[in-house]
Amino acid sequence: MTPNRLTASEAAAAIAAGTLSSEDLVRDCLRRIGERESEIRAWAFIDTAGAIAAARNADTAKLLGAGPFGPLHGMPIGVKDIINTADMPTQHNSVIYRGNQPGSDAAVVMLLRAAGAVVIGKTETIEFAAHGRLPVTRNPHDPSRTPGGSSSGSAAAVGDFMVPLTLGTQTGGSVIRPGAFCGVFGFKPTYGTVSAEGIKLFSLTLDTVGWYGRSVADIALVAGVLEISDEAAPPRHAMSELRIGICRTPYWQRAEPEMKAAIEAAAERLRGAGAKVEDAELDSEFDAINDLKETVMRAEGRFAFLNLQRAYPEKISPGITKRMTRIPNRDLLKALDKAAELRVRFDALAGRYDAILTPAANGPAPVGLAYAGDPIFNGMWTLLHVPCLTMPARVDAGAMPVGLQLVGPRFGDARLLGVAETIASAI
Amino acid sequence: MTPNRLTASEAAAAIAAGTLSSEDLVRDCLRRIGERESEIRAWAFIDTAGAIAAARNADTAKLLGAGPFGPLHGMPIGVKDIINTADMPTQHNSVIYRGNQPGSDAAVVMLLRAAGAVVIGKTETIEFAAHGRLPVTRNPHDPSRTPGGSSSGSAAAVGDFMVPLTLGTQTGGSVIRPGAFCGVFGFKPTYGTVSAEGIKLFSLTLDTVGWYGRSVADIALVAGVLEISDEAAPPRHAMSELRIGICRTPYWQRAEPEMKAAIEAAAERLRGAGAKVEDAELDSEFDAINDLKETVMRAEGRFAFLNLQRAYPEKISPGITKRMTRIPNRDLLKALDKAAELRVRFDALAGRYDAILTPAANGPAPVGLAYAGDPIFNGMWTLLHVPCLTMPARVDAGAMPVGLQLVGPRFGDARLLGVAETIASAI
Repeated sequence: MTPNRLTASEAAAAIAAGTLSSEDLVRDCLRRIGERESEIRAWAFIDTAGAIAAARNADTAKLLGAGPFGPLHGMPIGVKDIINTADMPTQHNSVIYRGNQPGSDAAVVMLLRAAGAVVIGKTETIEFAAHGRLPVTRNPHDPSRTPGGSSSGSAAAVGDFMVPLTLGTQTGGSVIRPGAFCGVFGFKPTYGTVSAEGIKLFSLTLDTVGWYGRSVADIALVAGVLEISDEAAPPRHAMSELRIGICRTPYWQRAEPEMKAAIEAAAERLRGAGAKVEDAELDSEFDAINDLKETVMRAEGRFAFLNLQRAYPEKISPGITKRMTRIPNRDLLKALDKAAELRVRFDALAGRYDAILTPAANGPAPVGLAYAGDPIFNGMWTLLHVPCLTMPARVDAGAMPVGLQLVGPRFGDARLLGVAETIASAI
Repeated sequence: MTPNRLTASEAAAAIAAGTLSSEDLVRDCLRRIGERESEIRAWAFIDTAGAIAAARNADTAKLLGAGPFGPLHGMPIGVKDIINTADMPTQHNSVIYRGNQPGSDAAVVMLLRAAGAVVIGKTETIEFAAHGRLPVTRNPHDPSRTPGGSSSGSAAAVGDFMVPLTLGTQTGGSVIRPGAFCGVFGFKPTYGTVSAEGIKLFSLTLDTVGWYGRSVADIALVAGVLEISDEAAPPRHAMSELRIGICRTPYWQRAEPEMKAAIEAAAERLRGAGAKVEDAELDSEFDAINDLKETVMRAEGRFAFLNLQRAYPEKISPGITKRMTRIPNRDLLKALDKAAELRVRFDALAGRYDAILTPAANGPAPVGLAYAGDPIFNGMWTLLHVPCLTMPARVDAGAMPVGLQLVGPRFGDARLLGVAETIASAI
């Protein structure tokens, strides 16, 4: 197996053990990118020389024993191009920000670098991660299909073994859906646990930093670096101790046959492995939850994009501006207050299960690059501020992957990842 | 009267009428700064040449009739130094960010510039606006006293007639308290209505952009540019139609005699002018509201400063790090949910009045520069997300100013400013 195929946690262990150098790993990732990038188009910017130099520095420090070393020592990562980097342009897939060079790293980038990560480059995004211009990125499992968005390049790069870890962001479904479409593990933690400083904002109530890897352990590795959780280390549950709630959501009729089959098959598998699997039904209070999300996103999006609409009205895509029609503040207020109520209500429901299993998207990635897919199975969880993980499943061998989503109550991130580890090994 | 003494709305009218040039105004502000800055120390950075050039451009555009011109055409402003500016350093009063040059303007700066504003420079702040190193700024009414903080330079610069408008930010009481201490009008709008993109974050739930001027009209001028409100233009109320609630808050015993006297005098004055003035008592649910604010601020502050604690542990002031002791996530969750409940509850109370009158601070600015004063009369309103205005009052001629605070329900910003106009003219 070439180093680029290692998961982040495998690579971290190999680097720590001295059986893999950061430079070899970075060079192998760059080799993979060189072979595949003309087809996948995951990257808005790559700093080959900088990445190799940083990897060499990491290796030299290791040789000199100059530790302690962070958990991501020498680990190549990709950063969604709405997230600032001090040494690379941050262009938001926008003509306004072409060549834009921020003066400092976004908080989350600074944290990953402080843990030893080597930033290889910036990944493609939908313009400002907000209904604007689509990137040219293709799905690594089938280049005729969308990788999803807006974290398109980050999901595709991990799915195509170009890099083991990438950063994304979610306002509607921008981490979980592309993760599902590209067949990788993607995680959106509890709202507010990762600083959004130095990142293009869209909706104050919804925007959340997330990340991709190729195993639950990869996701947990980053979660540990970001210190998002203060729960006691989750016990390793036997499957027979788990109670899983299946939540079909108010939008189940919009799930495609592959997704319905994947959820039912997973439920069957879990039941077969000894878990208690029950329906976790949302009561009628949740019926219009995606409408609430839409109200919040549009109203807060208007505040977030007002500056660009004023300063660069011709240079911001109509897809963004047409969404920013003015929502009356009283409607925003009602939506915010209702969402606050529903958060408490959902946490109570989720607290009765070890995890909630629900679709990560309607189905597999749709054919075509002009449409990044529907966030209908994502927006509600973003509004509820809860941690969400997508893990890949396949209905048939050779078929496109579909994403199974696991959800827990707010701040139950570590526990959710612990349960996900058990579930992933059974599915 | 020299141009620097004009309020922003007076200056805007004079520039629009062609009776004042932007260059004359900017030069007069720079003259005032030159005379007073060695005593007041309001500025972290001043771009004299850039400001004059921008003013000349504004004047030339006006001469050529190249409009339409924004409501701040040619208006000099100051920007708190935790807010990014593309053409000036943004240093956060931190050794970490010495000489830091952001690549682009913060959203709010872009909006003010798009409306014609000329940024003269960056104003002094407490380190990261967060319990860190205090600036060297002095109170313009008495240089032996603090101007308050963290928006110290912004409040002092307006109070000292150095510039008619400045931007600040509030997490605890960082706009309203310095405004009160420096005898100016300061405004914190409803949470979420002004984008915080490009600004140092501290608490996701609390951080709010605000601004200073020398009249209610100045505050409303900026509110209009930022489009924070969609209410119908507020009617000009006769005083006899107003119903004002006096809210002494759970912390009234901490108000100093000057503040108690100022509130009672204002109530008397309003009653005398025909307004209905009643006690607006908060019920016992609000008793521990500042503790909730403290929990949210500390817990979210840890997420916000984790990157600097990791990357620059020696270069961040202990005043910040010692506040960021880990608050359990379950305590944060409880505080967030309780705050959401109290917001609805307070809006219902505030909706029964045209405005709530309450102290803006304990009293006048304390003597000494080593302590920026107590935010005890501010944090609760920040947590409640409501619009707050401080307006200056004096108990006796020659005494230090004290701040009267007017508060309204969320998104009632325009209405609150309309009522404030009526109240200000009576007090």
